[in-house]
Amino acid sequence: MADGSQIRIGVLSCTNIVRKVSRAINLAPNATISAIASSITNSIEETKSFVLSNNFPPTVKIHGSYESLLEDPDVDAIYFPIPASLHVEWAVRAAHKGKHILLDKPVALNVYEFDQIVEACEANGIQFMDGTQWIHNPRTAKIKEFLTDPVSFGLLKTVQSCFSFAANEDFLRNDIRVKPGLDGLGALGDAGWYTIQAALLANSSKLPNTVSALPGHVLNDAGIVLSCGALLDWEEGVTATIYCSFLANVTMEITAIGTKGTLRIHDFVIPFQETEASFTTSTRACLSEHKVRNEIPQEVCMVVEFARLVGEIKYRGAKPDGFWLSFSRKTQVIVDAVKESIDNNLEPVFLSGR
Amino acid sequence: MADGSQIRIGVLSCTNIVRKVSRAINLAPNATISAIASSITNSIEETKSFVLSNNFPPTVKIHGSYESLLEDPDVDAIYFPIPASLHVEWAVRAAHKGKHILLDKPVALNVYEFDQIVEACEANGIQFMDGTQWIHNPRTAKIKEFLTDPVSFGLLKTVQSCFSFAANEDFLRNDIRVKPGLDGLGALGDAGWYTIQAALLANSSKLPNTVSALPGHVLNDAGIVLSCGALLDWEEGVTATIYCSFLANVTMEITAIGTKGTLRIHDFVIPFQETEASFTTSTRACLSEHKVRNEIPQEVCMVVEFARLVGEIKYRGAKPDGFWLSFSRKTQVIVDAVKESIDNNLEPVFLSGR
Repeated sequence: MADGSQIRIGVLSCTNIVRKVSRAINLAPNATISAIASSITNSIEETKSFVLSNNFPPTVKIHGSYESLLEDPDVDAIYFPIPASLHVEWAVRAAHKGKHILLDKPVALNVYEFDQIVEACEANGIQFMDGTQWIHNPRTAKIKEFLTDPVSFGLLKTVQSCFSFAANEDFLRNDIRVKPGLDGLGALGDAGWYTIQAALLANSSKLPNTVSALPGHVLNDAGIVLSCGALLDWEEGVTATIYCSFLANVTMEITAIGTKGTLRIHDFVIPFQETEASFTTSTRACLSEHKVRNEIPQEVCMVVEFARLVGEIKYRGAKPDGFWLSFSRKTQVIVDAVKESIDNNLEPVFLSGR
Repeated sequence: MADGSQIRIGVLSCTNIVRKVSRAINLAPNATISAIASSITNSIEETKSFVLSNNFPPTVKIHGSYESLLEDPDVDAIYFPIPASLHVEWAVRAAHKGKHILLDKPVALNVYEFDQIVEACEANGIQFMDGTQWIHNPRTAKIKEFLTDPVSFGLLKTVQSCFSFAANEDFLRNDIRVKPGLDGLGALGDAGWYTIQAALLANSSKLPNTVSALPGHVLNDAGIVLSCGALLDWEEGVTATIYCSFLANVTMEITAIGTKGTLRIHDFVIPFQETEASFTTSTRACLSEHKVRNEIPQEVCMVVEFARLVGEIKYRGAKPDGFWLSFSRKTQVIVDAVKESIDNNLEPVFLSGR
């Protein structure tokens, strides 16, 4: 693809995750980094040095503020590596400036905030996508094929998904994910986000009827979730359990059981290998191991798909693909419901109308 | 071992499971089948033909009733392949006759019944064991080693265990496991029994503080559990979820996550291979696959261990090993609690004092 047709992405601040995502943008043939904004916490000098050490294109513009980046006519879309508490303000402002949005999870502190982003995106024809990478791994498409195969898998009965990692002392004290004013949703908005999307994926993205937090959650002194589980309940006998934790060894499982088949994945969030990912299926007791090659890492797949959708709008007058906005919203609704159930003595939360 | 020192086992009736267990007794060097009882549903003629077609020793005595077998001085121990609703009566009678007891799960319809068996066993110096086979697979000992290793596994945070199989129409209509008068506890007393023991095993056989049934259980018209899940809760942040079902594809998983390591098994109830069983561990993100050879199938390991304990009592004046009575009782307490929670609008059941 000629450079002229690449989608130009602006990056809002330079945090650690930007190293991975900027590499992904560099590797995506249909996208490029055109600008980065420094912020109160990153001076222009720091941003310059970050840009140099992370192989940003030499043409990249460095803005002194988020506002300035939002005004840049050479920015088609913005990637937001900022705390969730700032999402609603900056994503809404970006949408009103006609910038497409790649937003890290959790997409907001709650769905009421997120609905302001939804409204701004819909009013301004903005393509939205949350920054969950594994969904874009080619393996995920193969998994969906199996989960919707009436012969090999049948009808879903239960899906159990789990993402944990043992955070160190420094993380548990200082990371934005354990601070009420910043990401606020703790392990639930971080590790839990992935497990909820795994449950939705297995259920054709259908919202469950009820969500109940499970006994045994752990909160820090500020009331932030460090570890919790939840049960999602669809029609009779179809359930999902999720488990997310900052306090347990790194584990990334999906086990989905249908009437005829079973799916198992042990590395669903970050595949053990960068260019090949595997999963196991069984139909009755007959096991198969599947390997799916991906020529490019999954975070690049994400950027490629995001830039493709933005390109469809920019060059071919297409409408935004609303799936991603809706998928993120459902995830946020479930995150909120788990939190509400925890705050309400583990009572089930009914999602009808949400 | 000379024949004279073999433990002589009597079998109470001939049902399908007897084919597997009688083969196991035949293969166990320290046990032999000395007698079988026919019953109202099996005539003496039928029992004779069963004995012939299942390679029972030619010396086996055929009794016309359970009572007659209980009086047989050439029977040291009894295996009870009879519905759970009959366990309390016949196990108590057997204990009073000095017969050691190998009892299929669920060991009783509830713990109040089971406590009568406990009392009779303790009053008469009876060795008790429930017929759960996987616990005796040499793999299980290796799993326990990993789960109690402070360096590789650390402290348990959560264990998720699941046993399901898709029963056919005939099973769902006629099997004793779905009949209120017979086994009565449905998938919970059958598949669930295994998952509960897996959770106990991972928690050093400690009873949880509370047990809560999860939303989404399925009952048949007679109120028998066909599918359900439950959450077991120990001290802060240590939990287990179990899932058992007659309605989902055959799946037999244990995933245990500690502070430092993770254990995964995909065939814990019946290993994919009869003479080798595997499991996977990871410490941090470093994976290892373990294979454990067993020279004899796991059901034979069970009989060998049972006969060894009975032999210790019979030949060396040892006392019964109380672990198995206590382990079965804890399992039954949890089965009862899940049932009680289902009957009580999924309220958590506190196990203190049970």
